[in-house]
Amino acid sequence: MRRLDSAQGDFQLQLKQLTAWEEELDHAVNDTVREVLEDVAVRGDEALLEYTARFDGLELSHAAELEIGQERLQQALLAIDDASREALETAAARIREYHQHQLQDSWNYRDSAGNLLGQQITALESAGIYVPGGKASYPSSVLMNAIPAHVAGVEQIVMVVPAPGGEVNELVLAAAAIAGVNRVFTLGGAQAVAALAYGTETVPAVDKIVGPGNIYVATAKRMVFGRVGIDMIAGPSEILVICDGTTEPDWVAMDLFSQAEHDENAQSILLCPHAGYLDRVGQSIEKLLPEMERAPIIRASLEGRGAMILTRDLQEAVEISNQLAPEHLELSVQDPEALLPSVRHAGAIFMGAYTSEALGDYCAGPNHVLPTSRSARFFSPLGVYDFQKRSSVIMCSAQGVQELGRVASVLARGESLTAHARSAEYRLDE
Amino acid sequence: MRRLDSAQGDFQLQLKQLTAWEEELDHAVNDTVREVLEDVAVRGDEALLEYTARFDGLELSHAAELEIGQERLQQALLAIDDASREALETAAARIREYHQHQLQDSWNYRDSAGNLLGQQITALESAGIYVPGGKASYPSSVLMNAIPAHVAGVEQIVMVVPAPGGEVNELVLAAAAIAGVNRVFTLGGAQAVAALAYGTETVPAVDKIVGPGNIYVATAKRMVFGRVGIDMIAGPSEILVICDGTTEPDWVAMDLFSQAEHDENAQSILLCPHAGYLDRVGQSIEKLLPEMERAPIIRASLEGRGAMILTRDLQEAVEISNQLAPEHLELSVQDPEALLPSVRHAGAIFMGAYTSEALGDYCAGPNHVLPTSRSARFFSPLGVYDFQKRSSVIMCSAQGVQELGRVASVLARGESLTAHARSAEYRLDE
Repeated sequence: MRRLDSAQGDFQLQLKQLTAWEEELDHAVNDTVREVLEDVAVRGDEALLEYTARFDGLELSHAAELEIGQERLQQALLAIDDASREALETAAARIREYHQHQLQDSWNYRDSAGNLLGQQITALESAGIYVPGGKASYPSSVLMNAIPAHVAGVEQIVMVVPAPGGEVNELVLAAAAIAGVNRVFTLGGAQAVAALAYGTETVPAVDKIVGPGNIYVATAKRMVFGRVGIDMIAGPSEILVICDGTTEPDWVAMDLFSQAEHDENAQSILLCPHAGYLDRVGQSIEKLLPEMERAPIIRASLEGRGAMILTRDLQEAVEISNQLAPEHLELSVQDPEALLPSVRHAGAIFMGAYTSEALGDYCAGPNHVLPTSRSARFFSPLGVYDFQKRSSVIMCSAQGVQELGRVASVLARGESLTAHARSAEYRLDE
Repeated sequence: MRRLDSAQGDFQLQLKQLTAWEEELDHAVNDTVREVLEDVAVRGDEALLEYTARFDGLELSHAAELEIGQERLQQALLAIDDASREALETAAARIREYHQHQLQDSWNYRDSAGNLLGQQITALESAGIYVPGGKASYPSSVLMNAIPAHVAGVEQIVMVVPAPGGEVNELVLAAAAIAGVNRVFTLGGAQAVAALAYGTETVPAVDKIVGPGNIYVATAKRMVFGRVGIDMIAGPSEILVICDGTTEPDWVAMDLFSQAEHDENAQSILLCPHAGYLDRVGQSIEKLLPEMERAPIIRASLEGRGAMILTRDLQEAVEISNQLAPEHLELSVQDPEALLPSVRHAGAIFMGAYTSEALGDYCAGPNHVLPTSRSARFFSPLGVYDFQKRSSVIMCSAQGVQELGRVASVLARGESLTAHARSAEYRLDE
C-alpha cells in the first residue's frame, strides 16, 4: 500500500493522481444503451425477452414469466434460515426508524398582507428499485432502496433484479418481502431501466428509478433522466479513515479491507498524523490479508488505489477528507465530536473506534446508497426525500394582491411579457 | 382553441395526444454537445473563445473578457430606472423570505442502546446559474436561481449568460447584483455548461448547475450529471386553470395568454364543469387576442397546444390535472382550500381568482423554476434544498455495538463479504 506525506512538495499532485476516477465517455456503451432504450420503448415486452435471453442467458417464452409473484417472495422468507430472517427483520426495523426522521411536512405561513404562502409535500406514486444480480446481489441493497420509498408512502414499489441463467437469490427475495416491495421482475441492464422508464405491456412505467448498477445501467439512468427521476450515478466504493493512533490497528486494517473486498477499483485511504501508527496498520494488513476469502480482490484494490497518508495533524486530515468528499468517512479517534463540525463533504460519517463502516452497510439505520467519486460535494445519501416532492402554494388576499400586482406588472413589462403584466393588473383596484 | 369533453368516449386518447411532448432523442444534437463538452474539457479557454465566437457572434481576444466584474453589475443597478430597481428589490426580498422557510436543519437522536444517529446538513460550496440570453433574457430568472443558493449559504455563485453579438441586458446584470451573484461570465450553450462542469483557466468548476436553457443546454446538463449536480430538464411552459365559473372570464383568458406568450409550444388548458362559462372565456379570448403584443405566438400556442375541457365536476377536473401534473395550476374557484388536498402533482398551485400565475413568476415568493412535461410527478420547484446536501452521522456506543455487530455479521456473511463481517465482529465482546 503506497505511503504519502502531506508535507511533500508534490503531495497535491499525488493525491490527485491517486483519486482520479473517470467513467470514460465511452461511445460504444452510449450507442448500445441508446439502441436498447429505443428498442424497448418501441417494441416493449418483445424486446425485453430478447435482451434478457442475450445478456442474462435467461430464455423465457412469455413476458409474464419475468414477474416473481408475492407468494414466491413469502416462500423465500420461509425458506431462509432463522438467523438470516431475524437479522433482516432487525435491520429493516432500524432502517425504517431512522428514515422516518427524514419525512418532510407541508408548511405554510401568512405574510403581513394576508397572502398565504407554503409548500405541499406529497409522495411519488411509483418507484423502480434496481438491484444488481448474480454475485453482487445483496439483500441489504433491497432494504436500503425500498424502505425509504415505503416510508415516504410510495404506493407502487417495483423491483428489478437480473437472474443470470435463471438464478435468483433467496435472501434478496426475502428482503423484498420484508421491505414492502409490490412487484418484482427478473430484469437487468439497460433493458430493465428502459422498461421502468417507458413501461411495457408487462412492466409498469414508474416515476423514479433508484439503485446502483454497472456502466450500462448508469448510462441508461442518465439518458432517461427527465422522463423519470433518478437518484445518482454510482462509482466504485470508497472509505477514508482518519485515525489519531488509538484504535486497535487490526480493526482499522479490517475496515480498509471491507471496502477493498467489494471491487478492485474500490478505494481505501488511511490518514493519520503518526508515522509509527501507519507502520502498525501496515503490519496488520500483511498479517490479516492472507487469511481473507477475497484476498486477491483486496490486494488489487489496496495496491492499485489504496494509500496511507501521513498528515500534519488531525485538522489537516479533515481538510484532505473534505477535498476528497469520501463516500464513507471513519473518524476513528477518541474525540470524534470535536472533528465533526469541520467535516463538510462526506456521504456517511462513522464516529469513534466502535463504529465500523460495516455497521452502516447493514443495520445501524442510515442508508448505504451513498454518493461516490467526490459527488458527496452535491449529492446526499438515498433517503425518504428522494421519494417525496413539493408543490408551491400561493393564495393572495384581495389586499395582498395590490402590492404584488404592481411589482409583477413593472417586472413583466421590463421583460416585454405584457400578457403577464395585464393578468396581474386586472386584479388591481382602480 | 379546441374543446374537449371528459364524457366523450375517446377523451383519454385525445388528452394523451394533446399533451404528448417528446424532446426527440436527437442524435445530431447529442453528437454536437458531446463534441463541445470534450473539447472544452481538453482545451479550456481556447475552446470557449472559439465557440463563443461561432455560436454567439461574440469575438473576444482574451478569456478574461468573458467576465463581467462586480463594478459593472453595480453600474447596471444604478443605470436602471427607479421603478425597476424597486420592483426587483421588493421581489428579491419576498423570494428571500419564502426560501428561508426551506432551510433544512441537521438532526440526530439516540436509540435505546445509546447509539447516536442523525444527519448533518451542509451547503454546497459553489453553484452555477445558467441564464438564457438574447430575447428571453429575464432578470426574474436571475433572482429565482441565485437567491435559493444564497439563502442556502453557497459561497461561490457563478452566473453564465450568453451575450449574442456582445449585447447584455442591464436588468439582468442589476438582478445579479441584487441576488448576490459572485461572478458573471458571458457564456451560453453547451460550452457554458462544459465550462461550469470541468472548469477552465478562467471559469471555475462548480458543484451544481441549475437553470433552464435550450435543447443544447438541456442535453449538456444531462451529460455532465454525476460529475456535477443538476436541477431538472426544462420543457415548454404550461398552465392548467380549473374554474368553477365565478372568475371574470377576461382574467382567465389573460392568464391563459400569459403562458402562451412565452413560446408557441407552451400549453394552456382550461377545465370547467360549465359549458356556458367555457363559451364566455372563448369570447374573451377572441376579444383580447388582437390587442396583445405577442398575438401571433399566443395564437399559435393556443391553437396548436391549448384546450378547453368540459368536466363532470370540479373533482374530476382535479383528477385530470393530477394526470397531467402541470407546471402551473390555478384553482380559480371560490373555495380553493376545499380542492387543495386532492391536488397530488403540480409544480405550483395558485389558489383563488386573485392569485394569477404571473404573481408567482415574479414576486409572490415561491420559485418560478418549476417542473414541466408531467415531471411534477417526481421533481420539485427549484429551492434551497437544491443547494444543501446531507451526510449521515453514526456514533455507536460500546453497548450499542453489541447488537448491531451481531446483526451486521449475519447479513455480511449471507452476502459472502467476510471482511465486512469480521470488521463488525472485532467490536463485539467475547
